[in-house]
Amino acid sequence: MEKTVKVAIQGVLGSFHHQVAQQYFGEQLEVFGFHTFEEVARSVEEGIVDYAVMAIENSIAGAILPNYDIIDRHALYVVDEHYLPISHNLMALPGQELATIREARSHPMALLQCKHFFAQHPEIKAVDDVDTAYVAKVIAEQKIKGLAAVASTKAAEFYGLEILARDIQTVANNFTRFIILSKEKPILKMPPTKASLKITVRNEKGVLAKLLTVMSEFDLDLTKIQSIPVMSKPWEYTFFIDTLIADEKQFGEAMKQIEAKYGAVKILGEYQNRK
Amino acid sequence: MEKTVKVAIQGVLGSFHHQVAQQYFGEQLEVFGFHTFEEVARSVEEGIVDYAVMAIENSIAGAILPNYDIIDRHALYVVDEHYLPISHNLMALPGQELATIREARSHPMALLQCKHFFAQHPEIKAVDDVDTAYVAKVIAEQKIKGLAAVASTKAAEFYGLEILARDIQTVANNFTRFIILSKEKPILKMPPTKASLKITVRNEKGVLAKLLTVMSEFDLDLTKIQSIPVMSKPWEYTFFIDTLIADEKQFGEAMKQIEAKYGAVKILGEYQNRK
Repeated sequence: MEKTVKVAIQGVLGSFHHQVAQQYFGEQLEVFGFHTFEEVARSVEEGIVDYAVMAIENSIAGAILPNYDIIDRHALYVVDEHYLPISHNLMALPGQELATIREARSHPMALLQCKHFFAQHPEIKAVDDVDTAYVAKVIAEQKIKGLAAVASTKAAEFYGLEILARDIQTVANNFTRFIILSKEKPILKMPPTKASLKITVRNEKGVLAKLLTVMSEFDLDLTKIQSIPVMSKPWEYTFFIDTLIADEKQFGEAMKQIEAKYGAVKILGEYQNRK
Repeated sequence: MEKTVKVAIQGVLGSFHHQVAQQYFGEQLEVFGFHTFEEVARSVEEGIVDYAVMAIENSIAGAILPNYDIIDRHALYVVDEHYLPISHNLMALPGQELATIREARSHPMALLQCKHFFAQHPEIKAVDDVDTAYVAKVIAEQKIKGLAAVASTKAAEFYGLEILARDIQTVANNFTRFIILSKEKPILKMPPTKASLKITVRNEKGVLAKLLTVMSEFDLDLTKIQSIPVMSKPWEYTFFIDTLIADEKQFGEAMKQIEAKYGAVKILGEYQNRK
């Protein structure tokens, strides 16, 4: 018998995070939902769970942009990435019909991604809420009629709601990127094709341009960059960078040159590019 | 008599946003609190308010990183910036003493910034909540004893709470950067010394390094950069960039070159650097 894997996620069960945890780890898992991403990271750090699944890049939950900072502060390791196609569905208590729905609640970004659907259904008022799956939970628990949630198929399944309209998002081919986190650096079975980095540089003229030119010369192709002012040192900046790796040796050489000339490099994770 | 200025903020009254609105616009103002940043932007777009005050860069509320994207989508204009020193204070119902406090609630980042204080007071349990001022509001309204909020002096004043410990943050000289937004581009009285840009580039090898090299050559000093994948075009990236402007003509020339060679430039605002 396989060992049950313990996985931490932010938010309630039935969320996109929950869906990714099952896709990635299979059914033999125990999922722990935490209120904040900070608590998720802490649960990995303290060994309460084996892994965390964390959204890191997308358009649905704005609040995920600071997650690299959380990963850094809790000394976690990015072991893999996973892409989930965004699929928003309108769901309500079983037996309800689309014509009886007067209001739909969800995360503001989810509602925004379904704006064409709501333009076609002006009788349904779209109202911002804190989360997608949370609304599904409340509707199911309090048996609220006339109200719908915009959430994942997983949420409908988990809370026993009926889907009244499927895939109501405006943009097709839109994915959310999740990362898998652990406390320990894993032993790599294959050469990594992607890495997440934290680089702290002095605020010298053009230092970022120079640093990125080095990366480009060593065939490192950036997929994400984000600056964070260093709290305790007003003139220093930290950059969180994701990069594709064409050749592992070139990657090592680039990091060496950046360390020598431009700033301190911390590798948050080396893993396989899944896109 | 001066006209009352209508200003939108995210969150409840007594927040850091409220504090900044008063510092910037003076007392002759009417403040409207909205649940989400999205609603704040919409209220400016629809002319319900004259301005919005929005946190854009700091370490206290992670959720603010996506705010440039919101500004862009609602076609708002950045008219100015404002820095507020971060000051966290422990507050409770009047008449309470520090020794009787068993729990303190606040935004996770606020609690983190006060970790030395809580290490010195192990008898007070620090618990994550959604907001700083919101906790102060709940304590005041429900008259909860033994519970403290970690929030601004404004929150204590606004909700009639007593400050039991002042400036309990660990890091000194830490500021939150706010921006002032309007629907119309204002007439500049002085040459701008800072700008907020949205630049959308093709995902070509080293394009960001080249673009930043151009900026550096024209004496533009970056203070912020953030990449956002373009939702509908999987191979394109958008960068939100803030830059100091040494010379307005050089700035114009750099933007012209970037437009010609690397991508589309949208100026979100040109204003005075206040740092």
